[in-house]
Amino acid sequence: MAVYTDVSDAALDAFLADYDLGQVLSLKGIAEGVENTNFFLQTAAGRFILTLYEKRVAASDLPFFMAVLDHMSAAGVNCPAPVHGRDGAAVRVLAGRPAAIFTFLDGVSPRQPSVAQCAEAGAALAFLHRAADGFTLRRPNALGPDGWPRLATATRPRADEVEPGLANTIADELAFLRGSWPRHLPEGVIHADLYPDNSLFVGETLTGVIDFYFACTDTFAYDVAVTLNAWCFSADGVFDPARSAALLQAYAAGRTPSDAEREALPVLARGAALRFMLTRLHDWLHRDPGALVRPKDPLECLRQLRFHRTVTDVATYGL
Amino acid sequence: MAVYTDVSDAALDAFLADYDLGQVLSLKGIAEGVENTNFFLQTAAGRFILTLYEKRVAASDLPFFMAVLDHMSAAGVNCPAPVHGRDGAAVRVLAGRPAAIFTFLDGVSPRQPSVAQCAEAGAALAFLHRAADGFTLRRPNALGPDGWPRLATATRPRADEVEPGLANTIADELAFLRGSWPRHLPEGVIHADLYPDNSLFVGETLTGVIDFYFACTDTFAYDVAVTLNAWCFSADGVFDPARSAALLQAYAAGRTPSDAEREALPVLARGAALRFMLTRLHDWLHRDPGALVRPKDPLECLRQLRFHRTVTDVATYGL
Repeated sequence: MAVYTDVSDAALDAFLADYDLGQVLSLKGIAEGVENTNFFLQTAAGRFILTLYEKRVAASDLPFFMAVLDHMSAAGVNCPAPVHGRDGAAVRVLAGRPAAIFTFLDGVSPRQPSVAQCAEAGAALAFLHRAADGFTLRRPNALGPDGWPRLATATRPRADEVEPGLANTIADELAFLRGSWPRHLPEGVIHADLYPDNSLFVGETLTGVIDFYFACTDTFAYDVAVTLNAWCFSADGVFDPARSAALLQAYAAGRTPSDAEREALPVLARGAALRFMLTRLHDWLHRDPGALVRPKDPLECLRQLRFHRTVTDVATYGL
Repeated sequence: MAVYTDVSDAALDAFLADYDLGQVLSLKGIAEGVENTNFFLQTAAGRFILTLYEKRVAASDLPFFMAVLDHMSAAGVNCPAPVHGRDGAAVRVLAGRPAAIFTFLDGVSPRQPSVAQCAEAGAALAFLHRAADGFTLRRPNALGPDGWPRLATATRPRADEVEPGLANTIADELAFLRGSWPRHLPEGVIHADLYPDNSLFVGETLTGVIDFYFACTDTFAYDVAVTLNAWCFSADGVFDPARSAALLQAYAAGRTPSDAEREALPVLARGAALRFMLTRLHDWLHRDPGALVRPKDPLECLRQLRFHRTVTDVATYGL
């Protein structure tokens, strides 16, 4: 369940005075995004999403995220475009929090993506990576390889509560990845969290990529690995070669991966699985028993990791 | 915070197969209504609200509520109109719960209604009462005078935790109302919960009356008394004669109250204050300390009750 900050009609009117959006026709708090409070906002000018940033997004990162979304939407990516006020600013304060307005995107997030939807996701990711060209701001990936040891240390004392031996599995994997992580692959701004719930579809057509709040500077091939894990395993953790082939071939049709990027994929996929396992494990161990939403299962990522350990040839992925 | 039931894209598609609404363009869970799960639903046919009924609304009452909304919307009331499926049914099962689709209404609920908005509310209530003509289904008011003794008994042991002496105040008021409650006033289907958060406005124009889940058969003048308490007191519980006069005069312009209805208003307003005090008191005493939403303050109603006890002439209300 989203954090939920209430916005009064009077506060909204004062906030919107800085924009040219006309009269407010509707404002509904929506249960979307666990990091922020989001509203469906309709005005005379159209439909928008109003986002209030709660403490999990650092205010100092907002200029980067806004710049990414400005750049990507200008480049034709189907992502929320920040709406700028008359003063040019995209972020200002509402209800004591940084807040921004974005264009509304049609679409519904798939629960179990189809093969055709995986192809759409691969094509969208390639388009996004090509659109990264010319974007010069940088933001290090706090959840990249340099960040994993800290997460591993923090979760180590209680990791075995989730599965006996998990702490050692994590330590072994970290040691392996430290020695095998590819260097010098092409990089730029990446989404870094392109899961199905961060995509929108009308039928089998992708209409939006949302939630850029993990966007950072990292290698494109790592973003491909994250997306592979996010889209190409069944709900019970079994790798689906049909979805993988569809996603990767559509990606390659939009942006041709180098030989080094292809060869790195199994290791990158192990790293991507470890990254999401570590953050899920942290959230799992610190979950609020009274919370309405069950945290995501870290063991789903462990099953992915175990699969990728068996992959010796990138052809297994259908690439 | 609303109860929140998740609906997958696949479940939604299966559900919508019984309707002629075209392709799904958007589905967003909205934080509106504490009794049900509500979604903003956009399809090729337009914008809708999809409601899933959680256990606080009795499934056996749904045919009555749907009939009220069908009748009222056909009569021109700005209320959600149930969308009927190809089989004629307005209620069917989704995610294991009774579910219905309604037309979407523009508007935002006012936090502190203006005098002009109070006039709109009064006019809308009169229109609703006139539209009740010809509606023949009946549903007793479970939260009317016959229901109060049960609520008073249930809350009596702990009422003084909220304010010392409250249990006795309630008992005294119940005794007074038992002897003074007016009989034989004009009756029909009433909204019974027309608070500002159950209204929608674009600017100063009322665009919707929503949340008919307390609708029942009772006297129109009691509905006026509920609405008076809901709209005509400041946030700190002070009666506002300007708002009251605006609301009641706009009501009278739409539906002329009889002399008996006018004279009964102070007693009815005491009953309305007691009714909301009792249910708020119950919710307050049974509140979940971990809940995100603070229950409404029963003492706000106590202040209203004390004010109405001082009223000897209906002219005090501006009528």
